[in-house]
Amino acid sequence: MRFRVGKSSAGFGVHVVDGDEAVNLTALDPAVGEDLMGLIQGEADLDQLSGRIAEATKMSLDAVTPALPVANPGKVICLGLNYVDHIKEGGYDIPEYPALFLRVQNSLMPAGAPMIRPSCSERLDYEVELMVIIGKGGKHIAEADALDHVFGYTLFNDGSVRDYQRKTHQWTPGKNFDATGAIGPDVVTPDELPEGAVGLKIESRVGDEILQSSTTSDMLWSVAKTIATISEFTTLEPGDMIAMGTPPGVGHAKTPPRWLRPGETVDVEIEGIGICSNPIVAEEDIATFEAAE
Amino acid sequence: MRFRVGKSSAGFGVHVVDGDEAVNLTALDPAVGEDLMGLIQGEADLDQLSGRIAEATKMSLDAVTPALPVANPGKVICLGLNYVDHIKEGGYDIPEYPALFLRVQNSLMPAGAPMIRPSCSERLDYEVELMVIIGKGGKHIAEADALDHVFGYTLFNDGSVRDYQRKTHQWTPGKNFDATGAIGPDVVTPDELPEGAVGLKIESRVGDEILQSSTTSDMLWSVAKTIATISEFTTLEPGDMIAMGTPPGVGHAKTPPRWLRPGETVDVEIEGIGICSNPIVAEEDIATFEAAE
Repeated sequence: MRFRVGKSSAGFGVHVVDGDEAVNLTALDPAVGEDLMGLIQGEADLDQLSGRIAEATKMSLDAVTPALPVANPGKVICLGLNYVDHIKEGGYDIPEYPALFLRVQNSLMPAGAPMIRPSCSERLDYEVELMVIIGKGGKHIAEADALDHVFGYTLFNDGSVRDYQRKTHQWTPGKNFDATGAIGPDVVTPDELPEGAVGLKIESRVGDEILQSSTTSDMLWSVAKTIATISEFTTLEPGDMIAMGTPPGVGHAKTPPRWLRPGETVDVEIEGIGICSNPIVAEEDIATFEAAE
Repeated sequence: MRFRVGKSSAGFGVHVVDGDEAVNLTALDPAVGEDLMGLIQGEADLDQLSGRIAEATKMSLDAVTPALPVANPGKVICLGLNYVDHIKEGGYDIPEYPALFLRVQNSLMPAGAPMIRPSCSERLDYEVELMVIIGKGGKHIAEADALDHVFGYTLFNDGSVRDYQRKTHQWTPGKNFDATGAIGPDVVTPDELPEGAVGLKIESRVGDEILQSSTTSDMLWSVAKTIATISEFTTLEPGDMIAMGTPPGVGHAKTPPRWLRPGETVDVEIEGIGICSNPIVAEEDIATFEAAE
């Protein structure tokens, strides 16, 4: 199945997507809740709703303005270096353990929302990534069982302010500027994709300019191995998110560097999952931009 | 003022502390809420409650079992290297920007609760730190105004699993093992301490063995400068926490290394704030330990 959390004429909530049409599940059953946590935690029964979904009035998917699939995830863990060619372009050695960092909630925004180019830096960069949303939590999850813990997959644009990422050896500041990490718009359940979401074309673009183009088969750590590795040190909980790292082609590795500029719109796409598209807006212009929306 | 969140005969909630006695504020006024967020956000008026606090039956402070001061902080940002002598003992250069990392909620536990020595590593280390709790949020906070954004100070033991901290250049795994970061037990408002909490003795111990002993005056980044620096990239929100880094004397820098062992109790103390004391329990024994409590 495919879900889009957001606002439509039928209200704010979880929409089930069928092609270019959508039905507001929250309007059908308030137990669904206002983000995916209700479905992740089994507070609503989709099978029981299926008859009402079939009978419901469909709306155009374009009429659903995306919101974050999980409004306030317990944790967002990101792999830094997971595609061999991206490791090489950053000047790093291939590690024997994934480079992991965290993102805070206010660094995130949904598809469609502005990605803020901060006033203190011009070095805002894109990173298309596969994002895993955890369904069933756990600790010490075996690699063989790990995919049973995935609720679904979505898109992530791990917007990075490169000079702040490399102020010290810890990447935290450059990976946590307000409203730089775009998630969504749709969450696709695992049955709709190849096992572990491998073999999917993954790409980022500004207009016709292709910035990154690769395949999720080039990930060093698979989704299953990553879940097993992370759950060795932390208990994964429903709604937690794991960003699977980015393929080569990021802006700071191009000659000359290719930074995102206000006025541009950056698209990240993974085959079978969709497109996450965000306008770049300068921090000093954000109030004007939002007033004009 | 001094607060302890926790459980007592008067119920779970916020207690105001006076010497070795406490009064349950939440029992006096449910608007106080079950952690400090109610007071931080001004949902209860302490001045209005002062008469009822004075008349209330006092209990022994020891009868209040500590809980986390803020149950689910929006973010916990930690300075990695903030005391010159600790930077040198770790083999790092003195940076021109603070090394920042994040901790997730399930890596945290209150004073008194077990610090879990994980089954995958024997290299569990202590780090006494000053912890800042943000009151008023903000972005681009000027250093001169930054201390107005502090609700209070508490203790932090930034329990670190050293081999996992250094698996890669990103410290995230070693800093985020379940139940390794101890917070509390008391939160002290800024008026009770020197400005910016400088000049305070800071120490960690196991029994009579003094492991770290320094002064908060040796911090490279002051509380005010740290708040200004962090709020350049992220909006600080009420209840966010900032851990101010640890002085020299950590276990991995001693010869031979001095790891925390199950059965020991580690105490961290800052003058004027209190003592945060946690037993070390092996992961494989945690169920037995909790059943015996």
